[in-house]
Amino acid sequence: MSYKEFGEAPVIIVDKGSVGIVETKYYTFAHPPNKFILDNGKTLGPITVAYETYGRLNPQRDNVILVEHALTASAHAAGKHHPEDKYPGWWDVMIGPGKAFDTTKYFVICSNILGSCYGTTGPSSINPETGRPYGLSFPMISIRDMVRVQRELVKHLGIKRIRSVVGGSMGGMQAIEWALLYPEMVDSIILIASAARTSPQSIAIHRVGIQAIMDDPNWNNGDYYGKAFPEKGLAIARMLGHITYLSDKWLWEKFGRKHTDPATMKLNLNSKFEIESYLEYQGTKFVKRFDANSYIYLLRSIDIYDAAEGYGSLKESFKRIRCKRVFVSSFSSDWLYPTYQSEEIVEALEANNIDVVYHEIKSPYGHDSFLLEYEILTPLITDFLNSI
Amino acid sequence: MSYKEFGEAPVIIVDKGSVGIVETKYYTFAHPPNKFILDNGKTLGPITVAYETYGRLNPQRDNVILVEHALTASAHAAGKHHPEDKYPGWWDVMIGPGKAFDTTKYFVICSNILGSCYGTTGPSSINPETGRPYGLSFPMISIRDMVRVQRELVKHLGIKRIRSVVGGSMGGMQAIEWALLYPEMVDSIILIASAARTSPQSIAIHRVGIQAIMDDPNWNNGDYYGKAFPEKGLAIARMLGHITYLSDKWLWEKFGRKHTDPATMKLNLNSKFEIESYLEYQGTKFVKRFDANSYIYLLRSIDIYDAAEGYGSLKESFKRIRCKRVFVSSFSSDWLYPTYQSEEIVEALEANNIDVVYHEIKSPYGHDSFLLEYEILTPLITDFLNSI
Repeated sequence: MSYKEFGEAPVIIVDKGSVGIVETKYYTFAHPPNKFILDNGKTLGPITVAYETYGRLNPQRDNVILVEHALTASAHAAGKHHPEDKYPGWWDVMIGPGKAFDTTKYFVICSNILGSCYGTTGPSSINPETGRPYGLSFPMISIRDMVRVQRELVKHLGIKRIRSVVGGSMGGMQAIEWALLYPEMVDSIILIASAARTSPQSIAIHRVGIQAIMDDPNWNNGDYYGKAFPEKGLAIARMLGHITYLSDKWLWEKFGRKHTDPATMKLNLNSKFEIESYLEYQGTKFVKRFDANSYIYLLRSIDIYDAAEGYGSLKESFKRIRCKRVFVSSFSSDWLYPTYQSEEIVEALEANNIDVVYHEIKSPYGHDSFLLEYEILTPLITDFLNSI
Repeated sequence: MSYKEFGEAPVIIVDKGSVGIVETKYYTFAHPPNKFILDNGKTLGPITVAYETYGRLNPQRDNVILVEHALTASAHAAGKHHPEDKYPGWWDVMIGPGKAFDTTKYFVICSNILGSCYGTTGPSSINPETGRPYGLSFPMISIRDMVRVQRELVKHLGIKRIRSVVGGSMGGMQAIEWALLYPEMVDSIILIASAARTSPQSIAIHRVGIQAIMDDPNWNNGDYYGKAFPEKGLAIARMLGHITYLSDKWLWEKFGRKHTDPATMKLNLNSKFEIESYLEYQGTKFVKRFDANSYIYLLRSIDIYDAAEGYGSLKESFKRIRCKRVFVSSFSSDWLYPTYQSEEIVEALEANNIDVVYHEIKSPYGHDSFLLEYEILTPLITDFLNSI
C-alpha cells in the first residue's frame, strides 16, 4: 500500500470476493408541492439520491445493511463500475462475499448524502427554479436531513426494517440519527470512530478550511460554476483535513523529517519535506473530484450536529433508541473523533439499558483507521451482526 | 482574564513588582566585508538586533538571564514602553522584582529574533543593496543563526557568561542551540514546552499556513510592501496556529458548542460558533501586527530545526553541553510540543550525565500553558535558578 493511498477514503484491494461490476442508480422524489421540508424549515426539491446496492434483498426483506459514508465519499462503496477501473469503491475491503458486510447474506445499500456532489442533490445541482446551479441559494442542511432523505430512498426500495445502519466518522452521526428518527426500523447501529456531537476543536479546524475556500477569489460567493474553480482554497482545506485524519505517531513513522531534496532544505524557501509534498498531492488530487460548495455545506452540517439537540441531553435523546444492540468502536490515535466521544455515546446508551459492544482499537493510523483497520474490524463486526 | 487574551502571547497582569518603563534598544553590527555568514552559507548584513534589558548587570557580570522568545513575540518581554500602555511586555508575569526572573537579582536580556519584524533584521527590513525591503531576497535562516546573531549582541554588551538561557516553545530551541554552540558560556538552560526537533505534524500544520499566505493574491511573491497586505492568508495561518496553541479539553471548557446567534445556526452558512468568532478575532488582530514574510521565514526556521543535525543523534549532539543543570518542563495537554518531545530531550541529557530537572505539568491550556501557567512555573524556576 503506497503512502498516496492514505488520507480519507484511501482504497485498499484485498483478495476476498468482490461484488463485481456495479452501477450507481438514481431515485428522484418530490413531495407535494414539489418540496421537501428541511430540519431548518426551508424547502428543497425535487431531490435526487444516488445509490448503489450489493447483494440481494431476501424475500422477508429483513437482510438490509445501510452504509453511511463520510465527508467526501460517494454511493460507490464496493465493486467497480468498469472492469478496467483501477480502484474499487471506497469500502470494498468491508463489503462483498465473505467480508464484514457479507453480500451473500446481506443486501447492502449505500447512498450519496444530501449536499454532496456525487449524484445526490447538492449546491452544484441545477436549481429547477433558475436553471442554474444552486450555489449559495442551496439551503443549509443537517445530518438529520441527510437521513430523512435516505429514508425516502429506503421506502422507495420497499424496505421497512434495517438489520444494521453502519457508519464511520460523519457516517456514524447518520447512523445515530437513523436510530433516533426511525427507531422502529433499526435493529442495530454500528458506529466507527464517530461522535454524538462535534467538538469545538473540529469546528475550529473546519472554519480554517471554510475560510480558505471563501477567501479564494475564484470562490466568488459560491457562484463559480462554469468559471474558474476555487481550487487553491479547497486544496488548503483538504490539506488541513488530511492532517486531522492521520496521527502524530503515524506521521513520524511514515514521513518523519524526510525531505524531498535535503540539499536545498536550508536554502530554498519552497523546498519541501515529504509530508508537505504528500499534502500538496492530496490537495491537488482532491480539487479535481470535489465541489467546493459541497465541502462547505457538509462541514457545516457536521459543525451543527448534536444528537442531544431537542432532547436536552444525550441520555434523554437516546431514550428513543429501540436497537437490539449497538456496536461502538474508537481508535486510540484518533484525535479528530477521540475515544472520549465514543465513550460518551456508550455511557448514554448504557444509561438507557441498551446493549452495547464497545471496542477501543489500538491503532497508529488516527481517524483514518476506520478505513484502514478492516482486518481488525471484520471479525468484530461479523460477530456483532451474527448476534443480532 | 477575558478569552481574547488566550492564544500565543496572551498578556496577563499580576500584582507583583514591575520593571517599570523600559525602552527597546538597537545594536547594529557588520562583519567584514559587511556581511554575516549564515548557517546555509549565504551572507546577510549589516544586521540590527532589537533588545531590552531589565535589572542590572552585577560587577562580576555573572547574573545574566537570556530570554528567548517564541514565534511572534518581540524584545519587549516586561514592563511598559509608556505609562499609558494598556499591556506590559509578553512575559511580564515572569520577569520583574520578586518574579521567577527576579530583576533585583538578575540582569535579564530579551532580543527580537533574526527574521522577525520587531526591530531585528528580517524580510521587511530594507536591503541596503537595493534600498527596498528584502522580501524573498532575504536568505533562509535557522534557529542557529538566530542564536549566533544574539551572541553578537551579548558580546557587544560585554557579557561572557550566562546564568541561564530560557525559552518556551521555539524559544526553547534557541536555548538548546545556545548550549550547543557556546557551551563554555552557558551555565544552565530552561526549556518550557519545547522540542529538539520539529515533528512532521508541526511541519504539516505550518505548510497549511504558509500555503494560505502564498496563495493570497496580495502576497505577490513576497513583494507586497507599500501595497495591499496579504491579510487574508496570514489571518488563516494565524487562526490555524491558534488552534494548535490550545487544547481540545480547554476549547470544550471555554467555548463548548456555544453559538454567537443560535437562531441562525441552522439557517445562515456564515453564522458562527463562539470558537469561530474567537479565531476570526485573533486572525484580524494578528495581521495588524505581524509581517507575512516574517511569519513564513520563522515557521520555516522551525521546520528545519533538528538539534541532532550534524551530530547524528541527539545523544551525540548533547555531548557538547556543559551546563551545570538543565530545566525541562512540558504540559500534559500540549499537542504542538507534546510531552514525548521534552522526554526525548531529558533522555539525551541523562545519557550524557547532565543534571536535569524535569516536570510534566498538568494543565488544560495546551501549548499556551508556557505563557499561562506562570503560577506553577514561578516556584519551580526560582528553585532551579537558586540551585545553579
